[in-house]
Amino acid sequence: MNPADAPSPHMDPDTFRTLGHQAIDWIADYWQHLADHPVAPPVEPGSIRAQLPSAPPEHGEDFPALLADLERIVLPGLLHWQHPRFFGYFPANASGPAVLAELLSAGLGVQGMNWSTSPACTEVEQQMLDWFVQLLGLPAHFRGTGVIQDTASSALLVALLTALHRASGGRTRDHGTDGHRYRVYLTRETHSAAAKAAVITGLGLRALHDVATDADGAMDAADLETCIRADRAAGATPLMVVATRGTTSRLSFDALDAIGPVCRRHGVWLHVDAAYAGVAAICDELRWVGDGVHHADSYCTNPHKWLLTNFDCDLLWVTAPEALVGALSVLPEYLRNPASASGRVTDYRHWQVPLGRRFRALKLWSVVRWYGAEGLRAHIRTGVRHARLFAGLLRTDPRFTLLAPPVLGLVTFRLNASDVANRGLLDTVNTEGTTFLTHSEKNGTYFLRFATGGTFTEDRHVHEAWRALRKAASAGDEGEQGAAMTSR
Amino acid sequence: MNPADAPSPHMDPDTFRTLGHQAIDWIADYWQHLADHPVAPPVEPGSIRAQLPSAPPEHGEDFPALLADLERIVLPGLLHWQHPRFFGYFPANASGPAVLAELLSAGLGVQGMNWSTSPACTEVEQQMLDWFVQLLGLPAHFRGTGVIQDTASSALLVALLTALHRASGGRTRDHGTDGHRYRVYLTRETHSAAAKAAVITGLGLRALHDVATDADGAMDAADLETCIRADRAAGATPLMVVATRGTTSRLSFDALDAIGPVCRRHGVWLHVDAAYAGVAAICDELRWVGDGVHHADSYCTNPHKWLLTNFDCDLLWVTAPEALVGALSVLPEYLRNPASASGRVTDYRHWQVPLGRRFRALKLWSVVRWYGAEGLRAHIRTGVRHARLFAGLLRTDPRFTLLAPPVLGLVTFRLNASDVANRGLLDTVNTEGTTFLTHSEKNGTYFLRFATGGTFTEDRHVHEAWRALRKAASAGDEGEQGAAMTSR
Repeated sequence: MNPADAPSPHMDPDTFRTLGHQAIDWIADYWQHLADHPVAPPVEPGSIRAQLPSAPPEHGEDFPALLADLERIVLPGLLHWQHPRFFGYFPANASGPAVLAELLSAGLGVQGMNWSTSPACTEVEQQMLDWFVQLLGLPAHFRGTGVIQDTASSALLVALLTALHRASGGRTRDHGTDGHRYRVYLTRETHSAAAKAAVITGLGLRALHDVATDADGAMDAADLETCIRADRAAGATPLMVVATRGTTSRLSFDALDAIGPVCRRHGVWLHVDAAYAGVAAICDELRWVGDGVHHADSYCTNPHKWLLTNFDCDLLWVTAPEALVGALSVLPEYLRNPASASGRVTDYRHWQVPLGRRFRALKLWSVVRWYGAEGLRAHIRTGVRHARLFAGLLRTDPRFTLLAPPVLGLVTFRLNASDVANRGLLDTVNTEGTTFLTHSEKNGTYFLRFATGGTFTEDRHVHEAWRALRKAASAGDEGEQGAAMTSR
Repeated sequence: MNPADAPSPHMDPDTFRTLGHQAIDWIADYWQHLADHPVAPPVEPGSIRAQLPSAPPEHGEDFPALLADLERIVLPGLLHWQHPRFFGYFPANASGPAVLAELLSAGLGVQGMNWSTSPACTEVEQQMLDWFVQLLGLPAHFRGTGVIQDTASSALLVALLTALHRASGGRTRDHGTDGHRYRVYLTRETHSAAAKAAVITGLGLRALHDVATDADGAMDAADLETCIRADRAAGATPLMVVATRGTTSRLSFDALDAIGPVCRRHGVWLHVDAAYAGVAAICDELRWVGDGVHHADSYCTNPHKWLLTNFDCDLLWVTAPEALVGALSVLPEYLRNPASASGRVTDYRHWQVPLGRRFRALKLWSVVRWYGAEGLRAHIRTGVRHARLFAGLLRTDPRFTLLAPPVLGLVTFRLNASDVANRGLLDTVNTEGTTFLTHSEKNGTYFLRFATGGTFTEDRHVHEAWRALRKAASAGDEGEQGAAMTSR
């Protein structure tokens, strides 16, 4: 047979339609029946792999076989982040309009590395970032300085590289960080992405300088200034402050109005990480989450957490984009093109670590258009209401103590018992399967986190989670009593 | 109205089904009618943005409005990478099974940063990487060392960080690269990602050392050894060789069997970038693309280019994963969990720059199952056949010269005329819209690239592109004649 006459191995368009409708229905079914499943099914390490063939198939098979294995092998091996009773970590919202736009983006399959490699990919993204300047009430000078990154970790890395470029007068690009002792200021509450970025950029963990915090975990601006002065006196170069509006562990908010002037006085780059909390500024009554953001040299927040836009989608603004491009641009011949040479376009590959990039702005566009600003606000407000609802329930049970009043969609609390008992409670409630929570620690004290904001979460799910938690606590009581009785 | 009674802003499941079917059909229609559209429609900078509202909508609107704007605003503003007559850059294959799995992954919306945050996400990925060890005939010691990265750029960055960690005995993690003059060896053909990684890691561009190449553009192993010895004698630390199996510009292949022993002798990390070409090893007759890969400390190839798996999906193997984890691990309390503490699981967040990660293995699984190894081979062979077909057509026209016989899916050629005329030809043919090609240069000589391998490309599309190119060349002839006549 002539190779050209061989049957095509590809999925023909009509088959794609049929199977695509099945895939859509599969997701709808998954979402509709999620509440019937345990949030975190028990899984033994290696048990998923053990169910997969050890060798790849020689011959193709039909798509429904994959769907069947999704049901049989994968679903029992997932922590279900979209489950309406998932209250762990922070939410990672999927939503109908986001998923459909992700699908469309995959079907289009374009590359946005340069403007010329798909102009609409770049221009829709620029427009969306400017829309978010308006939606979040960000300073007008942020317009035209925004870009989508995969995560807040990458955003921080890109900001740090830009700060290095600026502080060194462009020297780091050619000469690296060699011979300079740069310093990056943060607190114990700062996301671990800062440490990772320090390692990646060759500064090393020794470049990190812990600044004191107040009782709420917020950075002490006076101590920051003391640290900066001391470092400068010792011959180091204060480079960047990583401030956080809503820390991961317990939603501390660093006071930018106090920190910003310190940074300006000392010529230090101010990066503000509002990965989770920043999107809440879409609500007037929560706009305070962005207080002082006009001091920031760079700022990021993640629609892929609480704003209904599938991972990955982090929004980063860098108010000195020319320094960003200076830090990261490399130009091989095969990427030269008249549009870039004209200087009239933005080539986003210079704004990020990788070269290639997906059309991620499409899902942001889809989400904003489907929900409208009012729909997005309604979602944020539901999350806030659910946190208050849960905190209210906790207050009715004297076995529990709130660490603090709920902030946005986060409730932090403890069982009035040992750390061991609290760990046991988390394990018990997560194993039982009705809900899923995570933990953290504050000054060595272990506590539990209940993070609302799931796309599919309704009031009843909060009540169900609360009942499961109470039951687990009671089982712990009995266990402790049992242990106590046994030990008599 | 009580907020709890407010209508939900979310897309209900039945609406999701209906609109999802529309989105699937939209993609099928797009793919079916792509050949009727210009590959690269003319776009003026800013013209897309000008059609978008300057402010985000307050109220939500129905999804079909987005689909209508996709047609009206976005499609005329895209370079259509999935067009059957797209022969620019390298392909960025979408395919039915990949797009459907991307959809499923978005619907599941899980996070694979830790094993415990969705065990199946990690374990399916581990299995897929081991499947590809078999599919590509990679060394057995690659098993268990693989991970999906977004791009080959990130893969190179991660490899460089691992090499730094190993070479410094773990010192760089804490102390950075300060005080060491590390050297990274490459050639003029090496992808610009190497320069970007040198900047990002704080080594700076001065760490890069260009090694001589032979007439085919391959690294000269003897010169490499000379460079390494000279650098060492001068007090620098030879760190990494970036070798390429299939360079971006013209598919040069560095001889790993010559380079590998040099690296081993001098304790230098060997990273091998086979982003485009590596997947071709799935065909026995093309397995040579991986010759000598057993010398590699790290190796990557991209199913998102020529192997039918939507961007992003780069496969990276690092044969010393413990060094990789050592280089990149940071552990905040809120990510601690019993599974990680047990040491029995792999937490892929330590294997990459970002923290969060999508369930990308799902699309790889879907692609391999739908096509089977034989279907994947058939696709690669079609691309190779198309390159030969196009080269054969070029040979029939004395106005053109091949730079070299076609390699895999790439044909490099020139019009027998000035660089200016060649640039003009590229501009003319791309503006005409039937096809789209890109260019590069070799020793200062401009040339055109014709890269096959599109999912939807059939023989007739190669012929159509050839006719468009001949016509553009003829128009150029007339233009030159006309100019010549005018100047008389």
